[in-house]
Amino acid sequence: MSPNIAILGATGAVGREFLTIFEQRNTPIGELRLLASARSAGETIAFRGKGIRVEEVGPKSFEGIDYALFSAGGSTSRQWAEVAIDAGARVIDNSSAFRMDEGVPLVVPEINPEAICDAPLVANPNCSTIIMNMVVWPLHRVRPVRRIVVSTFQAISGAGQQAMLELERQTRDLLDGKPAEPKVLPHQAAFNLFSHNTPIGEDGYNTEETKMILETRKIFSCRDLAITATCIRVPVPRAHSESINLTFAEPVEEAWVRQTLAAAEGVRLVDDRAGNVFPMPIDASGEDDCLVGRIRRDLSQPDGRGIELFVCGDQLRKGAALNAIQIMEAMQRA
Amino acid sequence: MSPNIAILGATGAVGREFLTIFEQRNTPIGELRLLASARSAGETIAFRGKGIRVEEVGPKSFEGIDYALFSAGGSTSRQWAEVAIDAGARVIDNSSAFRMDEGVPLVVPEINPEAICDAPLVANPNCSTIIMNMVVWPLHRVRPVRRIVVSTFQAISGAGQQAMLELERQTRDLLDGKPAEPKVLPHQAAFNLFSHNTPIGEDGYNTEETKMILETRKIFSCRDLAITATCIRVPVPRAHSESINLTFAEPVEEAWVRQTLAAAEGVRLVDDRAGNVFPMPIDASGEDDCLVGRIRRDLSQPDGRGIELFVCGDQLRKGAALNAIQIMEAMQRA
Repeated sequence: MSPNIAILGATGAVGREFLTIFEQRNTPIGELRLLASARSAGETIAFRGKGIRVEEVGPKSFEGIDYALFSAGGSTSRQWAEVAIDAGARVIDNSSAFRMDEGVPLVVPEINPEAICDAPLVANPNCSTIIMNMVVWPLHRVRPVRRIVVSTFQAISGAGQQAMLELERQTRDLLDGKPAEPKVLPHQAAFNLFSHNTPIGEDGYNTEETKMILETRKIFSCRDLAITATCIRVPVPRAHSESINLTFAEPVEEAWVRQTLAAAEGVRLVDDRAGNVFPMPIDASGEDDCLVGRIRRDLSQPDGRGIELFVCGDQLRKGAALNAIQIMEAMQRA
Repeated sequence: MSPNIAILGATGAVGREFLTIFEQRNTPIGELRLLASARSAGETIAFRGKGIRVEEVGPKSFEGIDYALFSAGGSTSRQWAEVAIDAGARVIDNSSAFRMDEGVPLVVPEINPEAICDAPLVANPNCSTIIMNMVVWPLHRVRPVRRIVVSTFQAISGAGQQAMLELERQTRDLLDGKPAEPKVLPHQAAFNLFSHNTPIGEDGYNTEETKMILETRKIFSCRDLAITATCIRVPVPRAHSESINLTFAEPVEEAWVRQTLAAAEGVRLVDDRAGNVFPMPIDASGEDDCLVGRIRRDLSQPDGRGIELFVCGDQLRKGAALNAIQIMEAMQRA
C-alpha cells in the first residue's frame, strides 16, 4: 500500500525539492496532493510525466492523506497542522513553528530517529542546524563535545526562490554597470555578504543563530552543550557552508575524527590537503551527503581537545526536503 | 623637503592603490618612481594629472630614493630589498618574505609604531591579520585576550587583479549558461567559495591561516596568544570579512567592548541591531576604517569572558597599501 502524500507549500523552493527527491528515490506514492495558499494555487507542476494542479489548501485538503509535508512558513503551519492531524495525517513540518515545543520531536534521522515514536507531528530542524549536526553528532555520540563555535556562509536560496532570482538579477545589473536594488533581501546580495536577515534578539543573536543553538541542544538531548554561532549570507546560490570549531571534553586524535566522519552516514569526506580540495558549495549542491574537510587539530587548544572542520551541505536537500522525507521514511519503517 | 618614493610592483592591485591613496592624502612627494618587472614595465600610469612610465627595476632604481614601497611578491622583495637599503632607501615590504625575521619590525601603526624605530626595512603584515588586529588590539591592550577563533570571508582581489577579472568573467559565463573555467584561481570563484588557495602545512593549516596566527603574536608581542583561523575565499570582489570569537583573561562587559571599539583609531562601529545594519564588504570597500559590528556576549562562555564580533576591512587599503603608507608617515614623523 503506497501512502497518500500532501505537500503544503508545493510551489516554493523546498516544495519543488520534495518532488525532485521523490523522483530520484522512486518514493512509492498513492495519491500526491499539492497544496498552496490561494495566491500560489492553480499552477500545474510536472511530476513523473504528468501535470498535477496545485490546489488551495482548505479544511478538506488532508482527508485520506497519510503524510503531510509542510513547508509554507510558520503561520501556515500553525493554521493547518491540527486540521491535517485531525484528518489522520502525520505531519512533518519544515517551519520553525513547533520545533521547540516540548511534545514535538525535532529529528535528524541519522541522529535521533527514536524520537519520532508515534508522534502525529514531527518538526524538521533549521537547515544550518541540520548541516552542522550531521558532522558534529558522529563525533559527539562517542566523545562528548563541550563547546561549538560556528560561523556560517549561507546560500541565498535559503531565503527562497525570489531571493535566488534577486541574486541573479542584481549580479547582471552590477556587471552591466547598473545599481543593485535590494527588494526581497534587505541588503545587496550580489558581490557582497551580510549578517543573516533575521531579527536580532536582546542578547544580540539573530534568530538563525538562536535556532542553531537551541535546536542542536534539543536534537542531541544535551541541554548544557555550549554553542555560539555567527550566521552570514554569502552570494552563493545554493548549499550552506560552515566553519566549525569544537572543544571536546577530553583530548581527541585528528585521525579518529577523520575516520569517524569518513564512516558516518550521510557524510562524505572531502579533505585532500595536497590537492587543496575541500568542501565547496558547488560540489554539495544537489547532493544528499554533507561534505566535510579541513579537519585538523585546533592549534589554539594545546591540550588536544580542539578540532577545526569545514562543512558544506545542500540546505534545500539535507537541510530541508531530504531530511523531511527521511523522517517520513522512518515513520513508514516503524 | 618632499621625499622621493619608489613603488616596486606599481602595476599590481596594491601598487595602483598606493597611487590612489597618495592622491587622496595629498602625500608630499618629490620624485615618484614606478618600478616593475621587465614583463610589466613600459606601461604609463596617470598620477596627479601626468603620466609616469613604469621602469624595469634594476641595480640603479633606488638611487636618491627615500622610501621604497615593495609589493611585487616575496622573491622580488628578497632580490631587491638589500639593493634599495644600500642605496639609502627605507623599505616597507608588503610581501611575506621578511615578516617573521627576528630583526624586522612587523608593524600596524595603530598598534606598534614604536617597533619601527630606525629600521631600514619594515614589513607590512598580511591583510587578514591587519584587519583582525585592528579590532582585537584596542581590546587586548586594556583587557588581555587569551584566545581568538577566527573564520575569514576573503575577497577575490586579495589574489590580485587577474583573479578579480576572473571572478567577473566566470560570473558572466555562468549567467550566460556557459561553464566557469578556473585559470588564475584553483577553483570556481563565481557563485562559490573555497578554502584559501595557499599551500597546507603538516598541521593542516594553510599559509594564510598560519600568517594570521604567527603575525598577530609578533605584532602584539604576545608569544602565547592562542589563535586558530579558518580562511575561506568568497565571491566578493573587494574587502575581507572576519567572524571573530574572543576569550578574555577576565570577564568583560559588552558595553565596554562597544565603547572601546567606537573610540579606536581606524575603526568604525556599524552595529545597528534594530535596523539590521552591520559591516558589509560593499561598505568597507575604498574606506580607510575597518568596520566592526555584531558585538555581543558569547553565550557559549557563561563566565562572561567571551565576545563575538564581525569585521569588514578593505584588504587593498588598510590590509595593504594604506598600512604601508601609514608606516612611511610614521617614519617621516620620527
